[in-house]
Amino acid sequence: MEKKPYNQINTGINLEEFINVAELRCDGRRPDQMRPIKFTRDFTINAKASVLVEMGNTKVICAVSVDETLPGWMRAQNIEGGWLTCEYSMLPSATPDRAKREATAGKLGGRTMEIQRLIGRALRSVIDLKKLGRRQLYIDCDVIQADGGTRTASITGAYVALRMAADRLLAEKVLKEDPIKEAIAAVSVGMYKGVSLLDLCYFEDSAAEVDMNVVMTASGKLVEVQGTAEGEPFTKEQMADMMVLAEKGISELLEAQKV
Amino acid sequence: MEKKPYNQINTGINLEEFINVAELRCDGRRPDQMRPIKFTRDFTINAKASVLVEMGNTKVICAVSVDETLPGWMRAQNIEGGWLTCEYSMLPSATPDRAKREATAGKLGGRTMEIQRLIGRALRSVIDLKKLGRRQLYIDCDVIQADGGTRTASITGAYVALRMAADRLLAEKVLKEDPIKEAIAAVSVGMYKGVSLLDLCYFEDSAAEVDMNVVMTASGKLVEVQGTAEGEPFTKEQMADMMVLAEKGISELLEAQKV
Amino acid sequence: MEKKPYNQINTGINLEEFINVAELRCDGRRPDQMRPIKFTRDFTINAKASVLVEMGNTKVICAVSVDETLPGWMRAQNIEGGWLTCEYSMLPSATPDRAKREATAGKLGGRTMEIQRLIGRALRSVIDLKKLGRRQLYIDCDVIQADGGTRTASITGAYVALRMAADRLLAEKVLKEDPIKEAIAAVSVGMYKGVSLLDLCYFEDSAAEVDMNVVMTASGKLVEVQGTAEGEPFTKEQMADMMVLAEKGISELLEAQKV
Amino acid sequence: MEKKPYNQINTGINLEEFINVAELRCDGRRPDQMRPIKFTRDFTINAKASVLVEMGNTKVICAVSVDETLPGWMRAQNIEGGWLTCEYSMLPSATPDRAKREATAGKLGGRTMEIQRLIGRALRSVIDLKKLGRRQLYIDCDVIQADGGTRTASITGAYVALRMAADRLLAEKVLKEDPIKEAIAAVSVGMYKGVSLLDLCYFEDSAAEVDMNVVMTASGKLVEVQGTAEGEPFTKEQMADMMVLAEKGISELLEAQKV
Amino acid sequence: MEKKPYNQINTGINLEEFINVAELRCDGRRPDQMRPIKFTRDFTINAKASVLVEMGNTKVICAVSVDETLPGWMRAQNIEGGWLTCEYSMLPSATPDRAKREATAGKLGGRTMEIQRLIGRALRSVIDLKKLGRRQLYIDCDVIQADGGTRTASITGAYVALRMAADRLLAEKVLKEDPIKEAIAAVSVGMYKGVSLLDLCYFEDSAAEVDMNVVMTASGKLVEVQGTAEGEPFTKEQMADMMVLAEKGISELLEAQKV
Amino acid sequence: MEKKPYNQINTGINLEEFINVAELRCDGRRPDQMRPIKFTRDFTINAKASVLVEMGNTKVICAVSVDETLPGWMRAQNIEGGWLTCEYSMLPSATPDRAKREATAGKLGGRTMEIQRLIGRALRSVIDLKKLGRRQLYIDCDVIQADGGTRTASITGAYVALRMAADRLLAEKVLKEDPIKEAIAAVSVGMYKGVSLLDLCYFEDSAAEVDMNVVMTASGKLVEVQGTAEGEPFTKEQMADMMVLAEKGISELLEAQKV
Repeated sequence: MEKKPYNQINTGINLEEFINVAELRCDGRRPDQMRPIKFTRDFTINAKASVLVEMGNTKVICAVSVDETLPGWMRAQNIEGGWLTCEYSMLPSATPDRAKREATAGKLGGRTMEIQRLIGRALRSVIDLKKLGRRQLYIDCDVIQADGGTRTASITGAYVALRMAADRLLAEKVLKEDPIKEAIAAVSVGMYKGVSLLDLCYFEDSAAEVDMNVVMTASGKLVEVQGTAEGEPFTKEQMADMMVLAEKGISELLEAQKV
Repeated sequence: MEKKPYNQINTGINLEEFINVAELRCDGRRPDQMRPIKFTRDFTINAKASVLVEMGNTKVICAVSVDETLPGWMRAQNIEGGWLTCEYSMLPSATPDRAKREATAGKLGGRTMEIQRLIGRALRSVIDLKKLGRRQLYIDCDVIQADGGTRTASITGAYVALRMAADRLLAEKVLKEDPIKEAIAAVSVGMYKGVSLLDLCYFEDSAAEVDMNVVMTASGKLVEVQGTAEGEPFTKEQMADMMVLAEKGISELLEAQKV
Repeated sequence: MEKKPYNQINTGINLEEFINVAELRCDGRRPDQMRPIKFTRDFTINAKASVLVEMGNTKVICAVSVDETLPGWMRAQNIEGGWLTCEYSMLPSATPDRAKREATAGKLGGRTMEIQRLIGRALRSVIDLKKLGRRQLYIDCDVIQADGGTRTASITGAYVALRMAADRLLAEKVLKEDPIKEAIAAVSVGMYKGVSLLDLCYFEDSAAEVDMNVVMTASGKLVEVQGTAEGEPFTKEQMADMMVLAEKGISELLEAQKV
Repeated sequence: MEKKPYNQINTGINLEEFINVAELRCDGRRPDQMRPIKFTRDFTINAKASVLVEMGNTKVICAVSVDETLPGWMRAQNIEGGWLTCEYSMLPSATPDRAKREATAGKLGGRTMEIQRLIGRALRSVIDLKKLGRRQLYIDCDVIQADGGTRTASITGAYVALRMAADRLLAEKVLKEDPIKEAIAAVSVGMYKGVSLLDLCYFEDSAAEVDMNVVMTASGKLVEVQGTAEGEPFTKEQMADMMVLAEKGISELLEAQKV
Repeated sequence: MEKKPYNQINTGINLEEFINVAELRCDGRRPDQMRPIKFTRDFTINAKASVLVEMGNTKVICAVSVDETLPGWMRAQNIEGGWLTCEYSMLPSATPDRAKREATAGKLGGRTMEIQRLIGRALRSVIDLKKLGRRQLYIDCDVIQADGGTRTASITGAYVALRMAADRLLAEKVLKEDPIKEAIAAVSVGMYKGVSLLDLCYFEDSAAEVDMNVVMTASGKLVEVQGTAEGEPFTKEQMADMMVLAEKGISELLEAQKV
Repeated sequence: MEKKPYNQINTGINLEEFINVAELRCDGRRPDQMRPIKFTRDFTINAKASVLVEMGNTKVICAVSVDETLPGWMRAQNIEGGWLTCEYSMLPSATPDRAKREATAGKLGGRTMEIQRLIGRALRSVIDLKKLGRRQLYIDCDVIQADGGTRTASITGAYVALRMAADRLLAEKVLKEDPIKEAIAAVSVGMYKGVSLLDLCYFEDSAAEVDMNVVMTASGKLVEVQGTAEGEPFTKEQMADMMVLAEKGISELLEAQKV
C-alpha cells in the first residue's frame, strides 16, 4: 500500500469532471477535508474526566469513571491487572427521526453492541491493563447529536477523556505508572459517486457505496480497519485510496487532541 | 393552607439560632432561595425542539419529537386526539458514582418508571390532546449532570421545549390550534434539620427528613404534590410551610421560562 | 392547614344543591364515609402472618415472610440491621376487564413498581430496621378483588400482618425488641364534581378530577402525600379539604386495626 | 388394566404390616382417601365466574374471563371457532418457604409453563371450540395456599368455573349452544414406601417415589396421564394400582362438582 | 396391565378391515414397527462425548460436557454429590416451516422447557448423583432434523453419549465409580384412526388422537409415562395397548444402544 | 496494494529462519495453505436448501428457508422487493469449553449479533433484492463444531446453500429471474509471530497478534474487510500481505463452491 499524495488518490476518477468539486459534498468540503474538530474538556463534572467531542454536527459526551471492582469473569479466571469497558448510546433525540430508547426496548441492538465492542477494543489496545491495578475504567460515549461518524468520534474523544483521567489518577497516586502507551484516534472514510471522501457526514454515509472506519495510533499503526460495501463491492485500489485519506484525517485528529 | 411570608414559615424553628443561616445549605443559599436557572434553547438541532435546562449543577436535555403514529392502545380503543409520552434517563456519568446503564441491565428501574410517568402526567395536564391531531409527541428528558431535582427540572425544561415545538408546528400549519392551555413548572422542597428548604441539591436531598415535589400551573393550581418522609414523618404544618416555599420557587421558574 | 369539621370542608360547593347527597356516590355513602373495613387474620397459613383486608369490595391478601438472607446491596455496602421489601400484584381476574399477567408479559409495569415502592417506604417508616437483625421481611400484597384503593388497603392490611408477624417473632425469641415504632394506615381521597370524597371506589376514582393517597401514622404524622390532578388542576384549599377527610378516614382505620 | 377393588391394589405390600395404617399418612387418611373437597362459587365477583377450590389445605382461585379478541396465531392462520387459554400462578406466600415472584424474576419458570399447558389442554379437551364463537376464554388458576396437588385442584376447580361461565354466557345469549361436552376432573396419586396413595399432600408428594397426575372425563375416559419416577422407577403393576386409585378419586370429585 | 402379543393389541379394531395395513402409515411400516435406528458416536469432537442419534428422519446431536462448578442452588443448600442438567433445542431449519430461534425471541418456549425438564429427569433417574463428585454434567440435545419423536430420540441418544462420557471419565480416573445404574431409552406411541402405533413420525403425531411418551429402563421399569389426548379422550384399554407397543419399541432401542 | 507472489509476502520476516516452517502451524500447514474444504449438500432435508460446510474441523450447517412474509419495517416503509436475513448460532457443545446457550441466557451476545449482521450484509451484497419478490429468505448458520473461522465458513457455505435454493425456486417458478449477481466467499487471515497466516484454526486465532476477515466476490471485489489488532497494532505493509493471502484463499474457496 504505497503512499500517494491525497490529490492523486481518486483512481479512475478525474476530479476535473466535477465542475465544482465543492458541490460533491453536502457542506462544500473538499474530498479530503475534515469537519471542524472541537474538544470541550470537563463538559460535565461528576465523572473522573469528561469531554464533549464535536466533529461538525456530531457531538458525543465521552466520560471516564473508575470502578474499584473488577468484572466477574476476571475474578473467576484470576486474570492479572485491570480492565477497561466501553458503553455507547445515542439519545433518542440525537437523530432527526427519533430512535427508540434501548432501555425501553429492554435490550441493546446489534449496532450498539458492535460499536461499543469496537470502542472498547480500540482503547484497550493503547492501555497496559496491568498498570491499571485491580480496578476497572468505564468509558461512556453518549451521542447527544448525530451527523455521521459517531463511533469514530467516540474513539477520538474517549482517548482525550482517558488521558485526562489517567493524569488525574497519577496525580492522586491512585496509579503508579502511566497505563497509556500512545495516543489513538479514528475516522471514517468512504466512496461516494466513485470518489474517496474523508470524514463522512450522515447524508454522505447513507448514500456512500463503501463505508470504512479506521483506527490508528500516534505511531501510525493500525488497530482496526472495517470496510463495508454498502452498495457496490470495492477494489483493492479504492481501499488503498481510502486508507490514505484516513491516515491524513487521523493525523489531524491526533494533532487536535494535543491542544 | 393560609399563605404566610416565607420568612415566617419555618414553624417551631428560630432561624436566629443558626448563627449564620448561610451555613445551613451547602452552597450558602438562604432556605427560600432557588439555584441559578438557565434555559439554552436549540441545544441540539435534530429534534423538533430541544432545551438544555440548568438548575445549578443539574443539567437536563429536554427534547420534543413528533411521531405521526399513535400508540397501539389508542388505535385499539379508538380514542380521539393525540398523545404525549415522556421518557426520562440519566447518563451513567451524570452522577459521582457511575450508575449502571438501564439499556445494559435490560430493563427500566422503578425510579425511572415513576419519574417518567410523573413527567408525562404533568405535561399532559396542560395539553389539550384533541388539538394535537392524530399524532404523538415524545418528550425525552436526558439528565447529563445530576445534582438533585432532576425530575422537577425535567418538567420545567420540558415545558419550554414543548412551547417551542408547538410554536413551530403552528407555524408549519401542522397544528391548527395551540394545544397548550397554560405554562407549568415544578420544584422540590424539603425539611432538613427541621428547616424548610427550597430547591434541594443532591447533598440536601439525601440528608433531608422530608422530600416533596410540587408541580404547579401558571394559574397557581396544583397538578402533583408528592411528599415523602425519608427519615421522619412530618406534620401538616410542616407540609403547609413547604407548600409556600414551593409556590415561591415555581413563580420564579414560570418567570424564567418566559424569557 | 387548619382543621375544619368535615361537614364544612367542601369549599365552594353547597351540598344542599344535591337534592339527595346519597346519590353523589355509587353506593350511597356520605362524602366523608368510609366503606366497611374488615381484617381476616391468618387467611392463609403458610406465611409467618397473613391478613385478608377488605375495604368494601377491594380485597387484598397481605402476607409477611421471613428471609434469613439480606439483599445483595446491603451485604455489599455493609449496612447494619435488616430490611423490609414489599411486592404488590393483582390477580388477572381481580378487575372486570382481565388484566394481563405481568409474569407472562415478562416485566413489571410502571404502576406496579410505583405502588410497591410506596408500600415499602410506608412500612419501613414505622420500622426500626436495626431491630430486625440480619434478616429481611417480605410483605406480599396480592389483590384478589379490586374496587379502588388497592394501594392504600395494602398498606393498612400490611401493617396488621406485620404486627402479627412481629408478635410471633418476639414470642419465638427470633426478635429481641419490638421493631415497630407505631401503627400506620392509608386512605385515598379525591375530588369528584367539585366535592371532596373519602375512600374512593373504582368508579369514583376513574371519574375523579383529583386523586390523593395519604399515609399517616398513629401519632398523626404524615408519611406520604401523593395528590394527582387526573383531569383538572386543584387549588390549595381543595387539597386542604381532602387532607381533613384523609385524616378522618385514617383515624377510623387505625381503630379498626386494633381489634 | 383390569379393575380391582381399591383394598386389593397395593401389590406386594401387606397393609396389615403397618400396625396402624392411619400412621402412613401425615393426616391419618386411609391410602385411598381423598382430602375434604370444597367449592366456593363466586369467591370473587369481577370475572365472568370464579370458584375457590379447596382440597384440604390446597386452595386455588379459578376464574374465567371472556376476551372478545382471538390470539394472533388464530387470526393469522384463519382458524375457525374460539380458544381457551389457561394461566397458572402461585402467590409467593402460598408456600412455607416464600417463592420468588415470577413477575419480578421477569419470566415464567419451566414448572409454571408445564402446568398451565397441562391445564389448558385438559379443559380444551371437553370444549367444542367452534361453539365458543370468535372469542377467547381465559382461565386463571391462582394458588393462594399450596399443600400438594395444585395442578389437579386447578383443573377440577377450573371446570366448575367454566360450567358457571358457560351457563351465564348461554343465559346472556352470548353463546348459542353449550360448548361443554362433559365434566372433567383431576387427581394426583403416588407411591410412598411402596404403597399407592390417593391425593398426595405436599409432604407425601415430596417424599413419594412416584408421582402421577391423572385427568379423566365424566365418561371415564383419560385425557392426561403423567407418571414420573421421582426416586425409583416403577412397575406396570404399580402403575395399574395407581390408576385404580385415581379413578376412585376422580369419581368423588365429579360428584362433588355437581353440588 | 397384562401383556398381550402385539398383534392382538388393537382393541376393538380389526386390522383386516384395512385392505392394506401398510397404507395406514405414511412410510408403510406395520403399526408395531420402529423406524431405522442409528447411532453415530463421536459425531462432533469437542465435547466429552457426542452422538448423532437417528430415528428415521429425526436426527439429534446429543453431547455430554463436564462442568467442574455446581449450580448455585446446590452450593447454597449444601447438597451432596453432583448434578446433571439437560438442554434441548431445535435448529430453525430442522422443521419444514422454519421455527423462530428462541435465542432471538429472548426466551425459551413452554414446549422446550417441558422437554428439557423431561430429558433431565429421565437421565438423572439412572444416575447416582453422589458418584459424580462435585461436578455437573451438561447434556445438550440439539435437533438438526425433526420428524416426530425428538424428545424420545433425545433421551435414547443422550444415554449413549452419557455411557461414553462415563467410560472416559472412569478411564481418566476423574470418576472413581461408575455413576450409571442401568440403561434407559424412550419411545413415542399413539392412537391414529383407533389403531395403536409405535414410534410416530411427524405426520402421524400431528394427526393422532392420542400421543404418549414412555421412558423405561433396561430392567423394564417405568421412569415416565406421559399420555395426552390430542383430540379424543382414550380408554384404559387403549392405554394398556399403547404401553405394550412402547415396551416392544424400547426393547429394540436398548438392544441398538449396546452395539 | 500491489500483488506479490505469496512466497514474498511475509515482510520483514525471513521464513528461512524457521528451521521447519511446518512447525509454525498447529497442523503443519504452510502459512499460505487452506485447511481441507468440504461441502455436503442437502445435509438436512427440511429447509429449501441446506449445506454442511467443513473447513478442517470447523463445521457449520447453512440452511436457506423461504418466508412469504416480509419484515415489519419493510411493510411499514413500503420498501420494494424482498429481504434476506441471517442468523448465526453455535451449539453449546461446539467448543471444548461448553458455551452457555443464548436461548437460556435470554439474549444474544454481542459477538453473535456482530457475526450475523456481517453474514447478512455479505450475502445481501450479491443478491438483487428486487428479484426476490415480496418474500424473505432466512439463512441459518448453525455451528456444530468450532475450530476457528466460523463466520467466514458460514459465509462461504451460506452462498452454496443460497445458490441451491435459488436454483430450486427458479425451477419451481417461484422466482422469475435469478436474484444472485455473483458468487461470494470469505476467509480469515492473521499475523502470528510476525508471519502472515491463511485460514486460522482456533489455536492460531487465539494466539494471533492480528485477526482479519475478508469477504470477496467472484469478480475479485471486496465486500468486507475487518482487521483487528488483538495484541499489537499492525502496519499497512502487514495488512497488504494479509490481503494477498486472503485473495489466494478466497480463490480456492470459489473454486470449491463450484463443484
